[in-house]
Amino acid sequence: MKKQRIGMIGYKFMGKAHSNAYRSLPMFFPKAPKLDMAVICGRNEEAVGQAAEQLGWAESMTDWRELLAREDIDVIDINAPSDAHKEITLAAVKAGKHIFCEKPLALTLADSREMLQAAEEAGIAHMVGFNYRFSPAVRLAKKLVESGRLGKIYHFRACFLQDWIIDPDFPLVWRLQKEIAGSGSHGDLGAHLIDLAHFLVGDVKEVIGMSETFIKERPIAAEMTGLSAKGSKDGPRGEVTVDDATLFLARFDNGAMGNFEATRFAAGHRSTNAFEINGSLGSVKFDFERMNELEVYFTSDEEDVQGFRRVLVTDPAHAYAEAWWPPGHTIGFEHTFIHEMLEFSTAIEEGRLPEPNFRDGVKCQAVLEAVERSIDERRWVQLSEM
Amino acid sequence: MKKQRIGMIGYKFMGKAHSNAYRSLPMFFPKAPKLDMAVICGRNEEAVGQAAEQLGWAESMTDWRELLAREDIDVIDINAPSDAHKEITLAAVKAGKHIFCEKPLALTLADSREMLQAAEEAGIAHMVGFNYRFSPAVRLAKKLVESGRLGKIYHFRACFLQDWIIDPDFPLVWRLQKEIAGSGSHGDLGAHLIDLAHFLVGDVKEVIGMSETFIKERPIAAEMTGLSAKGSKDGPRGEVTVDDATLFLARFDNGAMGNFEATRFAAGHRSTNAFEINGSLGSVKFDFERMNELEVYFTSDEEDVQGFRRVLVTDPAHAYAEAWWPPGHTIGFEHTFIHEMLEFSTAIEEGRLPEPNFRDGVKCQAVLEAVERSIDERRWVQLSEM
Amino acid sequence: MKKQRIGMIGYKFMGKAHSNAYRSLPMFFPKAPKLDMAVICGRNEEAVGQAAEQLGWAESMTDWRELLAREDIDVIDINAPSDAHKEITLAAVKAGKHIFCEKPLALTLADSREMLQAAEEAGIAHMVGFNYRFSPAVRLAKKLVESGRLGKIYHFRACFLQDWIIDPDFPLVWRLQKEIAGSGSHGDLGAHLIDLAHFLVGDVKEVIGMSETFIKERPIAAEMTGLSAKGSKDGPRGEVTVDDATLFLARFDNGAMGNFEATRFAAGHRSTNAFEINGSLGSVKFDFERMNELEVYFTSDEEDVQGFRRVLVTDPAHAYAEAWWPPGHTIGFEHTFIHEMLEFSTAIEEGRLPEPNFRDGVKCQAVLEAVERSIDERRWVQLSEM
Amino acid sequence: MKKQRIGMIGYKFMGKAHSNAYRSLPMFFPKAPKLDMAVICGRNEEAVGQAAEQLGWAESMTDWRELLAREDIDVIDINAPSDAHKEITLAAVKAGKHIFCEKPLALTLADSREMLQAAEEAGIAHMVGFNYRFSPAVRLAKKLVESGRLGKIYHFRACFLQDWIIDPDFPLVWRLQKEIAGSGSHGDLGAHLIDLAHFLVGDVKEVIGMSETFIKERPIAAEMTGLSAKGSKDGPRGEVTVDDATLFLARFDNGAMGNFEATRFAAGHRSTNAFEINGSLGSVKFDFERMNELEVYFTSDEEDVQGFRRVLVTDPAHAYAEAWWPPGHTIGFEHTFIHEMLEFSTAIEEGRLPEPNFRDGVKCQAVLEAVERSIDERRWVQLSEM
Repeated sequence: MKKQRIGMIGYKFMGKAHSNAYRSLPMFFPKAPKLDMAVICGRNEEAVGQAAEQLGWAESMTDWRELLAREDIDVIDINAPSDAHKEITLAAVKAGKHIFCEKPLALTLADSREMLQAAEEAGIAHMVGFNYRFSPAVRLAKKLVESGRLGKIYHFRACFLQDWIIDPDFPLVWRLQKEIAGSGSHGDLGAHLIDLAHFLVGDVKEVIGMSETFIKERPIAAEMTGLSAKGSKDGPRGEVTVDDATLFLARFDNGAMGNFEATRFAAGHRSTNAFEINGSLGSVKFDFERMNELEVYFTSDEEDVQGFRRVLVTDPAHAYAEAWWPPGHTIGFEHTFIHEMLEFSTAIEEGRLPEPNFRDGVKCQAVLEAVERSIDERRWVQLSEM
Repeated sequence: MKKQRIGMIGYKFMGKAHSNAYRSLPMFFPKAPKLDMAVICGRNEEAVGQAAEQLGWAESMTDWRELLAREDIDVIDINAPSDAHKEITLAAVKAGKHIFCEKPLALTLADSREMLQAAEEAGIAHMVGFNYRFSPAVRLAKKLVESGRLGKIYHFRACFLQDWIIDPDFPLVWRLQKEIAGSGSHGDLGAHLIDLAHFLVGDVKEVIGMSETFIKERPIAAEMTGLSAKGSKDGPRGEVTVDDATLFLARFDNGAMGNFEATRFAAGHRSTNAFEINGSLGSVKFDFERMNELEVYFTSDEEDVQGFRRVLVTDPAHAYAEAWWPPGHTIGFEHTFIHEMLEFSTAIEEGRLPEPNFRDGVKCQAVLEAVERSIDERRWVQLSEM
Repeated sequence: MKKQRIGMIGYKFMGKAHSNAYRSLPMFFPKAPKLDMAVICGRNEEAVGQAAEQLGWAESMTDWRELLAREDIDVIDINAPSDAHKEITLAAVKAGKHIFCEKPLALTLADSREMLQAAEEAGIAHMVGFNYRFSPAVRLAKKLVESGRLGKIYHFRACFLQDWIIDPDFPLVWRLQKEIAGSGSHGDLGAHLIDLAHFLVGDVKEVIGMSETFIKERPIAAEMTGLSAKGSKDGPRGEVTVDDATLFLARFDNGAMGNFEATRFAAGHRSTNAFEINGSLGSVKFDFERMNELEVYFTSDEEDVQGFRRVLVTDPAHAYAEAWWPPGHTIGFEHTFIHEMLEFSTAIEEGRLPEPNFRDGVKCQAVLEAVERSIDERRWVQLSEM
Repeated sequence: MKKQRIGMIGYKFMGKAHSNAYRSLPMFFPKAPKLDMAVICGRNEEAVGQAAEQLGWAESMTDWRELLAREDIDVIDINAPSDAHKEITLAAVKAGKHIFCEKPLALTLADSREMLQAAEEAGIAHMVGFNYRFSPAVRLAKKLVESGRLGKIYHFRACFLQDWIIDPDFPLVWRLQKEIAGSGSHGDLGAHLIDLAHFLVGDVKEVIGMSETFIKERPIAAEMTGLSAKGSKDGPRGEVTVDDATLFLARFDNGAMGNFEATRFAAGHRSTNAFEINGSLGSVKFDFERMNELEVYFTSDEEDVQGFRRVLVTDPAHAYAEAWWPPGHTIGFEHTFIHEMLEFSTAIEEGRLPEPNFRDGVKCQAVLEAVERSIDERRWVQLSEM
């Protein structure tokens, strides 16, 4: 097969994670399609040049339109700030590229639908960056649900807890500004929970939420990159225009009840991305801080030895495990991206749609917006309204 | 001081727990008021007679009105089924007795208010059975919140998960019948969470909930006692008239966000009564299945050693610990009742109101009903409406 | 059946635990033999009088010989300091009483053998206080081993970690004096591990150990009671004559390997009494700080869901659970004594030998002394030598 | 600086881990010395050719002597089977190469000393592959010990538990043959614990051990690679000539007590590499299966909130963390090798000795052999004897 030549737009947190993924595929998944880390693109010429060298890209550019115009590029990986996703995606679709777009797909549901429609009409491969699906433990949860080993699902209970902005003097980074980020904890963290719910339980029927911005003004950031920034606590302050925390209740089409909580104000939780599923035949529990483990319970276990099993998902029976290390030897956060890019490149090679794709991005966006509407209008919102 | 002479109505699960508490006070809290386990009262003469012998009561009776009429009884302990609480309480108030009433105080908010008003007018001591407040770990959480060591509270997140009726053939016990139990998981389990929220965080401003009865018909129980019963899975079925699970979101008066979930359909959870509080300076986590532990986090810990501490609350610095065993030697579920009765009897002796009392019972009932109304009317309900 | 009339010698830590056990049997195990808490005996007249009242004994005495002379006493419970066990036991045997003796049975193996021989010749019921056997989780471990569900046993790995004397100024209490206590962590903590090993794995063939007294001198205690005492850090110091920590390796008769560690210098461990057993078909793990749990692993579990199960031993399928509370409602340290006294009184009534009895006390003492000899002589010691 | 040109001998489990490390340095540690993955060497021409391609090496060879003869190679990385370490190392020293040698350094103490002497005389940089030192959590433990925050060390308690050969029909792979592997669990797993003890606590004074081979004969393996192999359970069997499990007690020069256990027969433990250190001011606990966490306890914590803290070592305050992902985003097993190679290449560039080096390899080997001698001669062995 011909090598897939990739052009990547963005080079910060996600850019590094994706680069590492592309770079790691041949070593750990030797049967994966061959990739060419061709061009990395960013606005700051010096910075993107350094990134190219550090992250292993052959070339760097500053104009993404120029990148899209190149005939020798097959695939576009978009991990620029969220407010740029739509424009770049539509242009890339037009240029006939396959597209990987980081989540959130867009800032609005309407935009994301426009992107999906364009991509579907163009017949390209499209994928959206819900990387947590690619945790081996999440795959095991999926397998247990799909095979019926958990029975009928009654409950999905999930929270994504962080604490990186708990200091009131933490500066006003782009992730705290609605016009760039779209939303705060809701779109950043909650979106992952929603996608996991879609993946593991099914479609959502209705939602009602609540939201809070605990710290309403913060020091304006002098400079900002991804999660970190420098600001002076004595300098001018600006308004925080996104939510610090958003919670919502949901009812799934299949009757299950959903409980979702995303916050950046949970002291002591650096990044607790956790869920539990309760079914009629069993339960599973997951916490990404212990991503190599899935807790599993079966009602059919013998009466005297029923209990949640701590399953270390590093055995040959577990997804992706054989590519890595012997049982008991763990992997980390970055590996989810390697598995993600395995799916993306394999799907392109096989001429099929990767999963999760823009449809999943749209579905997630629909729930995000339904929750926002439910907050604004203080009422239950049906997904069918969206 | 004169002995407090107790008459107890009810002799099943709670009756046993209370009896053990009264009986244990002099051994472990020798300075506690002296109590006399005078009369136990129940409808079935033979059963209550056996209970008297087993549980250590001097006499048994079958007519609670007769009990209330006795001059030599100072205190009435009501742990009869929930639908009897109001009538007995009002009569006991009239008879001038001090009253301990198991939760829920009544089946409706209106009833519970009537009970409170009567009790306040009579000037008796009144207490309601929210026993989890009396866990040493909960006391530590309270101390950390009250002293400001957790800072401003942002989040309260709680769930009470059980699985004892997950089998669709489990019979239709009284706890599944609205006219006796008032509600299902909501009033049984959720009520405890609400009281803990009141105790630890403060008053609730508004709520919105959702509710589900997953198994709508069950075998009619031939005989039923507390949590267990015998029914034939092939016999006639009756309607389950209470909720199997109820979730709700809440906003507290102080701005904190609340997340509450109560269910009897969480496979693998025999009785997970867990909460977490996140404040600006720290967090605490509790799970009653590990009731001797509180997890505590402080943002002020040195940067390289920040993390949740597993505090075993059996040290002299912890509530009630010195009455029990050396550090590291744990206590169990029943001990919460011993601490509860210590408060009850001490308050009576000191002529003050015990905590929690009927006011707390009313406040809890108000939230329970506000949630129910929010479910019926599919809207946010203000506590001020109730 | 006639009531068993008990005379108890000693009234501190263990005296309280035993009293609570006797007192609790009729409420929770109504079919247990009827007991009469007749006489409590101690050297200090005022203190023992107060203890009688607090702990629920009908009478108090100061002369144990007088107690033994009473015809109306059937059973003697010895929880006086360890150096008094032998003399009292031999006298009680002579008086034809059934005997419960706290561990350690005696200060030396020779003494304990003399006690066993006397007891066996007299045909009395005799029991020794290895209370941890009576944890429901330990019973489950025993059941799994005995039924073969763990297969052939390869490893027993146990530690009993405390930290109550880690402060060098903690005073020289009786437990730190060889002439009273016999030994330090070894006889106090290690003895429990050895008994659990005997109970769960079998007899020990050979041992080799090491021992250390980290703090060699401590303030002389002005007054001392059980674990606590008051001493002045600036006052005179005396020599610590027992071990602060003792470790040993063992080979069992059945080929299993044993690893034992007892210490009072493990900062952060109030009372971690933990063991793990690895067999050819599975493993179990236990930690008394979480005594309501047993972790259980089976090699026969399906490949993708193998893992240690956290079994909460509060289900009807677990030992003693039905006497207590519904599933998920835990018990504590003191309950082990209630179960212990259930065995003791039931065995007396049934005319059989209780378990564990003096034979187990002797066996434990043999291992304790074999370890001490191995330390003194710096060589492996066979149990057959002892 | 000039690039370091590497020749690597061996290409299985460790070869893959090392290759990934070399390859990852420039992306995550851009200031690390520049490396050239020049030549990979192995006996099987086809296999090593494939490995070169998969693992990212420019060339492959089959004759390591030829490799050593190449002037353009600066560094030799030896991860061939253990029995080849000595010969290759001595030749590489002679050729003036810097050397990274996987553990165990050699099959005997004498051999390892010969290697160290040669390396020291030649003045080359030498390193030995104790990768667990490079876990961020282990670095934190080291920092806490070295800075005195744990006080005087009393206990080191470590176990390395695996279960990959628990099936009696698992074939006779090279790791079960003394002439190739040197020893079994002792040299493979115990060696890591010994190195951690040296790193964290200090030198060992004396040891006594015990050892067992539970399954004495196994199917001869048709083909074997690293940990896995294919054998017929009905075919011929050969003798297992290494230990399945080895335990030993140790006394450190500084008075601390050591407890070491290594086994491949701990059902349910895929690779539990765990230790605990207890000092006069605090304790730490580590388990490699949760390598992103260190549990930390301080005696100086306030009385009511003392407890082991679960520290997630992904904060900027933790070793290596800033090279990776935001706080709360974990790393895995392979990252220890990346950090290891950072130390190796940096030390070469700086002209200093890397840590751990052959001296540490020799020290580890001395303890390993002292333990073996203690087992053979059934007595305590002083390290000064070795």
